[in-house]
Amino acid sequence: MGVVVQNIQRADAGVIARLGKAGVATVHEAQGRTGLMGARMRPIQQDKAIAGSAVTISAPPGDNWMIHVAIEQLQEGDIMVLAPTAPCDMGYFGDLLATSAMARGCRTLIIDAGVRDTRDLRAMGFLVWSAAVSAQGTVKETLGSVNVPVVCAGALVNPGDVIVADDDGVCVVPRAEAATVMDQAQVRLDAEEAKRKRLAAGELGLDIYKMRPRLADKGLKYI
Amino acid sequence: MGVVVQNIQRADAGVIARLGKAGVATVHEAQGRTGLMGARMRPIQQDKAIAGSAVTISAPPGDNWMIHVAIEQLQEGDIMVLAPTAPCDMGYFGDLLATSAMARGCRTLIIDAGVRDTRDLRAMGFLVWSAAVSAQGTVKETLGSVNVPVVCAGALVNPGDVIVADDDGVCVVPRAEAATVMDQAQVRLDAEEAKRKRLAAGELGLDIYKMRPRLADKGLKYI
Amino acid sequence: MGVVVQNIQRADAGVIARLGKAGVATVHEAQGRTGLMGARMRPIQQDKAIAGSAVTISAPPGDNWMIHVAIEQLQEGDIMVLAPTAPCDMGYFGDLLATSAMARGCRTLIIDAGVRDTRDLRAMGFLVWSAAVSAQGTVKETLGSVNVPVVCAGALVNPGDVIVADDDGVCVVPRAEAATVMDQAQVRLDAEEAKRKRLAAGELGLDIYKMRPRLADKGLKYI
Amino acid sequence: MGVVVQNIQRADAGVIARLGKAGVATVHEAQGRTGLMGARMRPIQQDKAIAGSAVTISAPPGDNWMIHVAIEQLQEGDIMVLAPTAPCDMGYFGDLLATSAMARGCRTLIIDAGVRDTRDLRAMGFLVWSAAVSAQGTVKETLGSVNVPVVCAGALVNPGDVIVADDDGVCVVPRAEAATVMDQAQVRLDAEEAKRKRLAAGELGLDIYKMRPRLADKGLKYI
Amino acid sequence: MGVVVQNIQRADAGVIARLGKAGVATVHEAQGRTGLMGARMRPIQQDKAIAGSAVTISAPPGDNWMIHVAIEQLQEGDIMVLAPTAPCDMGYFGDLLATSAMARGCRTLIIDAGVRDTRDLRAMGFLVWSAAVSAQGTVKETLGSVNVPVVCAGALVNPGDVIVADDDGVCVVPRAEAATVMDQAQVRLDAEEAKRKRLAAGELGLDIYKMRPRLADKGLKYI
Amino acid sequence: MGVVVQNIQRADAGVIARLGKAGVATVHEAQGRTGLMGARMRPIQQDKAIAGSAVTISAPPGDNWMIHVAIEQLQEGDIMVLAPTAPCDMGYFGDLLATSAMARGCRTLIIDAGVRDTRDLRAMGFLVWSAAVSAQGTVKETLGSVNVPVVCAGALVNPGDVIVADDDGVCVVPRAEAATVMDQAQVRLDAEEAKRKRLAAGELGLDIYKMRPRLADKGLKYI
Repeated sequence: MGVVVQNIQRADAGVIARLGKAGVATVHEAQGRTGLMGARMRPIQQDKAIAGSAVTISAPPGDNWMIHVAIEQLQEGDIMVLAPTAPCDMGYFGDLLATSAMARGCRTLIIDAGVRDTRDLRAMGFLVWSAAVSAQGTVKETLGSVNVPVVCAGALVNPGDVIVADDDGVCVVPRAEAATVMDQAQVRLDAEEAKRKRLAAGELGLDIYKMRPRLADKGLKYI
Repeated sequence: MGVVVQNIQRADAGVIARLGKAGVATVHEAQGRTGLMGARMRPIQQDKAIAGSAVTISAPPGDNWMIHVAIEQLQEGDIMVLAPTAPCDMGYFGDLLATSAMARGCRTLIIDAGVRDTRDLRAMGFLVWSAAVSAQGTVKETLGSVNVPVVCAGALVNPGDVIVADDDGVCVVPRAEAATVMDQAQVRLDAEEAKRKRLAAGELGLDIYKMRPRLADKGLKYI
Repeated sequence: MGVVVQNIQRADAGVIARLGKAGVATVHEAQGRTGLMGARMRPIQQDKAIAGSAVTISAPPGDNWMIHVAIEQLQEGDIMVLAPTAPCDMGYFGDLLATSAMARGCRTLIIDAGVRDTRDLRAMGFLVWSAAVSAQGTVKETLGSVNVPVVCAGALVNPGDVIVADDDGVCVVPRAEAATVMDQAQVRLDAEEAKRKRLAAGELGLDIYKMRPRLADKGLKYI
Repeated sequence: MGVVVQNIQRADAGVIARLGKAGVATVHEAQGRTGLMGARMRPIQQDKAIAGSAVTISAPPGDNWMIHVAIEQLQEGDIMVLAPTAPCDMGYFGDLLATSAMARGCRTLIIDAGVRDTRDLRAMGFLVWSAAVSAQGTVKETLGSVNVPVVCAGALVNPGDVIVADDDGVCVVPRAEAATVMDQAQVRLDAEEAKRKRLAAGELGLDIYKMRPRLADKGLKYI
Repeated sequence: MGVVVQNIQRADAGVIARLGKAGVATVHEAQGRTGLMGARMRPIQQDKAIAGSAVTISAPPGDNWMIHVAIEQLQEGDIMVLAPTAPCDMGYFGDLLATSAMARGCRTLIIDAGVRDTRDLRAMGFLVWSAAVSAQGTVKETLGSVNVPVVCAGALVNPGDVIVADDDGVCVVPRAEAATVMDQAQVRLDAEEAKRKRLAAGELGLDIYKMRPRLADKGLKYI
Repeated sequence: MGVVVQNIQRADAGVIARLGKAGVATVHEAQGRTGLMGARMRPIQQDKAIAGSAVTISAPPGDNWMIHVAIEQLQEGDIMVLAPTAPCDMGYFGDLLATSAMARGCRTLIIDAGVRDTRDLRAMGFLVWSAAVSAQGTVKETLGSVNVPVVCAGALVNPGDVIVADDDGVCVVPRAEAATVMDQAQVRLDAEEAKRKRLAAGELGLDIYKMRPRLADKGLKYI
């Protein structure tokens, strides 16, 4: 506790952008179904998707001091990822902090706790995925750390990892694997496009994926 | 487990359509306050209402194989109802399966588990009421059954039962009782319209429903 | 139980309106971080904010009789606050009761239980913050009380207290303190406006709030 | 609602006793992993196991009137199964009702709601599996039914079905299948005994169940 | 915040002792089914019952400083009641604080948050009803108050109120009403004793309470 | 997925034993309040404390195949730590697997999912901390991994890390830091012993920890 790591590495901006377009479900599959945060992480807005580099924040429950420290470390396109050190649904973040983060090019927060001023945040175009919405204020008394590894909603996040978030939730891609995961994601996207056309035309998954023999082997009975 | 019932009976299409317009609260009341699924079943879209015939799916936790099997059984206007055999919030269903279901005339899923690709589903006009939203992928390893009785979010659903769903939740009407329930619902709707006008004009429920004497009998005191 | 208090005092209408504009987070801070209802109280609509005088309802679980009694006590601008005497997610309130309440100038319900007809309520412009959405019907068998002190979602509410509600949740301001709290809120609002400009211009909270020395004292290390 | 079925059929007493000894996990497996109530059903006592015939109770939330009605229907060895018609954690049942039930030879309650007087119940040897413990009192105002099919904690229970309960939870065996399920359970019990000896002697499941080739086929790598 | 009220009034010791013997369910009924804390308040020990005078603590989430302050205010037979100002499951209290409290004659804590060292507390005979068990440590940075009104697990507690706790949960009796409530509880206890004998002898509640005519009036049908 | 790491390093046996005696609360404090699993991890037994070396298992939801694989890797004193790759409360583990594990010297399981045969496990002296108790059976279809890093109930666990568990929950100590953490824990234990005596003698924490001046500085008022 009480450490700020100032220089972190980030993944390639082009890869990050493509991961954001691929979306959470595809990226999660492409990296072997790992890295997904728990389903309690919900967006405060609808129909928005994003990707960026994680600036991580380990904060005590009910204490948002470290967000101020983290904002100084932000670069264009970064995403703040805050994990409290004990479960907490208090409102760590509101429109003033969002204003400050946006001034540094960051417009997204992932937080396994609460946020407030949600109407203002939506109006500002600041995106949030959080475990709660709560006006409950926090204090500034105890140190945490910035840019250390954190576990956020059950997922390990290292600073500089790529965060992908959309209406389905939040997924973490380890920085060093971002390009490889995107390659795999692209393979999936291409394959899905072809399948989508066949399915839309009325072909059945049972036939496209040749499932009938294996279902029969397992003993499926039609009556 | 491992059974697909292929020919199920469905209720009258006209009755189904009228039940959809009556809505969940009215239908639930009209059939004696039964058939309501638990409040964890929430829509991924807003301000949509629908009714249709249940094609039921009993699926193992984290295994969506039976959805492919079920899609072959769908007819125009059907609604898939998936009950996992143990609690599970994984994402059983996404845009590819929705494409396939829509090609067969089904545009609604009721699932006591998770869905993904929710933004795409909304864009496609595919309606979902689910217990969770999650990108977490499922496997195709273990058989379940299609068109057998299931308990979904606490409500018993037989194949061919009428499902009514709107922003208030999901209600099940036994197929054989659909017409009778709709008759009762119509009685309610007619009565409500009259009451609505009197209430809007400022009359009190206390007077319309003649509650004052009974309240006094029970001992209500005004001070 | 079984008491209706008919004449309650209300706060000044101008103060109430200003508290509504200040919003939940600001008002909660202005009165020393008290009075916030629990985070389970969520709006059924989005991007709406309101304030009004509490007409309180203590109701048995699953029994909405007292709402009819309470409606007679409503005045223009009042907000109904219903606390069940045991946890309950049933649907106490729907469009007919809303019609009746609106005829008396009340267009908001705060309820630590469920509501139904949510699509209709949104269409009517009737605002609700609730712990659940459920079509489950209630009975009219057991007395409760109107305009007695209640604990709603963890917050004590006296009749006539000011309720402030927006997308962040619900906050209660004791009637006698409304003007003082609004004065404090105004101080905050004015200060926030100035800070917002400096933060938007890129100044850091670390500098504006002079946090650096205290962080160093506590032992924060930059590496 | 409002129906009491007086003559129900019960399974063979010897089969019921053997199912109770087999226990929940074994019986659940023996009938194809069906019939298990949700994990919220917890015992108020420890290290007790039982089986008996279900006398079912469908009760309104917060209303325990039907328990009095049900007690008259009890026979030696019966188990009451109460499912509220909406979620409710109130205390429907305490030591007086237990005294009355025990006078008729019933010493177990399965309830998807709350109980109270738990210390007394333990002292009396009355067994309870419940979703909650709560002193909250209930009313006697609204009819329910006795010995109709109910869904209790997600499991369908018909009157006369066999209920098996132990520290792992509660399982329902359809009456007509009780003997067959017990036969299957006995097969499992016998097989388990042999396996237990081999495992205790240090043999590995990997070898006993011949898992190694299939694991290798699936691609498991030892490093 | 930041207030310690030093001289509080307590109820009569004899009345308190009798309320403890009457138990939570009886006392809750005797005072009109009010004052019950939520069902999340569970004992860390089994088969213990107690009553005492509330010394209340309003504490910030994750900050246990005020417990030290409160201990100085304790008298023989007092019970500490801690309500955090936001939901929190951290471990505010352990064996050292219990040692200190016991030195002043207090051996019970009611806390709508977490405790730790639970094995030691049981061994010491220090009784706890809490919303959670957690080893998570707290800080000592922010003031709260002692002996002010608090809302604990949904129940309003004033300093000096009588707390009754047993395996069923926790109930609060306003100090001024303690004797009256105990009188009512005694009436119940006496009546229950008579009823218990009749029920044990096999008489039915249906007959003792003369329920049959009213059930028939409501339409109950035996088939 | 699909990897088994066979040779892992373990901490010194003497240090492990001492950490187990120090207990979860003390160890958690000694390492800077890190490493605690979430409060949903509860023991199925009471008043037991243990420490051991983690053999980690990453398993698909509802699939316990990897436990068989892990058992082969166990050494005397090891503790299995199972983290499902998605939330799951099914019963992965029962008395047969416990028999097998005990044959290899392991008598503890930490699992962020369900267990069954809990009565047998208690009788055998096999210790479990789990997120659920459930008889629900699992399959053996999909690979996971053994002895890879996992996130279990929010805590990162590397194979060979020291697990400390008692009635307060579960704490993880990184292997390389075990000795240092134990040194810190010993310092705490020694200090606590002295404090316990002073507190038991009636001295106040306010005086022992010299809190009064700082409380006064913060503005605490006695009235």
